[in-house]
Amino acid sequence: MNNKVLKEEVDKYLNEYFNGKTGYNKKIYESMSYSLNAGGKRVRPLLLLASYGIYNDNYEEVIDVAAAIEMIHTYSLIHDDLPCMDNDDLRRGRPTNHKVFGYSIALLAGDGLLNEAMNIMFNYCTGKSEEALKACSIISKAASSNGMIGGQVVDILSEGKKISEDELRYMHKKKTGELIKAAIVSGAILGKAPSHELELLAQYGDKLGLAFQIKDDILDVVGDTKIMGKKSKSDLENDKCTYVTLYGIDKCKAICEELTEDCINIIDKIHGNTEYIKEITELLLKRKR
Amino acid sequence: MNNKVLKEEVDKYLNEYFNGKTGYNKKIYESMSYSLNAGGKRVRPLLLLASYGIYNDNYEEVIDVAAAIEMIHTYSLIHDDLPCMDNDDLRRGRPTNHKVFGYSIALLAGDGLLNEAMNIMFNYCTGKSEEALKACSIISKAASSNGMIGGQVVDILSEGKKISEDELRYMHKKKTGELIKAAIVSGAILGKAPSHELELLAQYGDKLGLAFQIKDDILDVVGDTKIMGKKSKSDLENDKCTYVTLYGIDKCKAICEELTEDCINIIDKIHGNTEYIKEITELLLKRKR
Repeated sequence: MNNKVLKEEVDKYLNEYFNGKTGYNKKIYESMSYSLNAGGKRVRPLLLLASYGIYNDNYEEVIDVAAAIEMIHTYSLIHDDLPCMDNDDLRRGRPTNHKVFGYSIALLAGDGLLNEAMNIMFNYCTGKSEEALKACSIISKAASSNGMIGGQVVDILSEGKKISEDELRYMHKKKTGELIKAAIVSGAILGKAPSHELELLAQYGDKLGLAFQIKDDILDVVGDTKIMGKKSKSDLENDKCTYVTLYGIDKCKAICEELTEDCINIIDKIHGNTEYIKEITELLLKRKR
Repeated sequence: MNNKVLKEEVDKYLNEYFNGKTGYNKKIYESMSYSLNAGGKRVRPLLLLASYGIYNDNYEEVIDVAAAIEMIHTYSLIHDDLPCMDNDDLRRGRPTNHKVFGYSIALLAGDGLLNEAMNIMFNYCTGKSEEALKACSIISKAASSNGMIGGQVVDILSEGKKISEDELRYMHKKKTGELIKAAIVSGAILGKAPSHELELLAQYGDKLGLAFQIKDDILDVVGDTKIMGKKSKSDLENDKCTYVTLYGIDKCKAICEELTEDCINIIDKIHGNTEYIKEITELLLKRKR
């Protein structure tokens, strides 16, 4: 088992998840599946599996939760792309959900994926230990108004405005960082990590989430639309304040490398199979999309 | 404790829920609170409390779950009212959420309320028995793509089309019926109803959900915009197929009364304090909004 195989397993799970659905509401499953299986990097589920994998071999035990977190991420992309939000036409190299299914169905597909993630997590918790509930609760909170949605709110409200460094940090921490951190922490909880290592992994999660967002901001400026599968320079066009507008490209690259190094140093303090989580950490720094 | 007092308790809980929230994302709490406290009838939480109340006195034990189900209902109203959906300007006598907070924030407030409901339910389940998880799982499923959202999808897809009676039934059962039924069934599960009475309450839930929707369709035609607090004849304007377009007003009224009678007959077979649930059943038939 390695990250490539794990990604294939996550892909397979998500590809088959809505298979065989029929009925008058069939369109919603097509719409949800379309975005869920559009070639995403699966960063969050892989982080959850890698974090869990430090302590356990049997990834199948938690793949449901890994899939749920990807559904939450995908719903947020569908809603972010809507005309009333970032109004993006391209995502992962394909037309955005509302471009294919229309505005109303895309809205409902987003709602549906968020809701489905919760269905999966409530199911998962049934008959399980308190760790399961704790992990799912952390994921749900990370996605909420005091987490990912809160970051999105600030993103919307700050468009065309100059915001303080503090507000920018808040926005990114919430919008991107919280769910990344939740993937790592919940994976560790499900893996029954000892409490001091759980603490280390939470610190790792904070740093990785920040590095991830800064890298996103860099890619938005220097990235290639073809490779990224979404329009580059969209932040600039939407007049958004980013780490790049705040610090410039070079400093951003330096911060990103430094954060990645910090992440690796934290991981090195952890006992267990840290091979996969290290591999992902480095891949995220080097990614081109 | 009676339905009036219980409604006041639910109102109080929801009124105070987002109190004292500060931070860059404050706007989302204002937006969620605005719709959550716009004078709703609180039908779903009251049904949950009344169903639980057949077997228990201590309603405070489950008021969290009752509040969560109202948040789910409110999110669905905010999203339904959006310009890409029913495009309604008025709800509960006040401008709709997007009219006050703008399209993007309203979208996020809907997402936030759905997510908050799940936060509450995950919290609620922590340290509780399996019944809690079962009840919350039923509510989450009732809201999902195979429940409320599924009904909404069919509603959108069928606009301007003539649909079969079967499809209309499906649409209403999912769009309105499922969450109403879930309120009743989850209340009974939390109250540890014996299994044969749980079965009876599920039947009651099916019938009440249908009666509720038919009454809604009637009110959309004969109702007064002022009393209803939302525009009447909006189904007609949106060229929607309803029970009234299918059967006509008189037959709809007759079906509604018959269903209510069936509901009361079912309730009469149940042992326990059925006073409040009976009272709500009758109020729902007589309601003018």
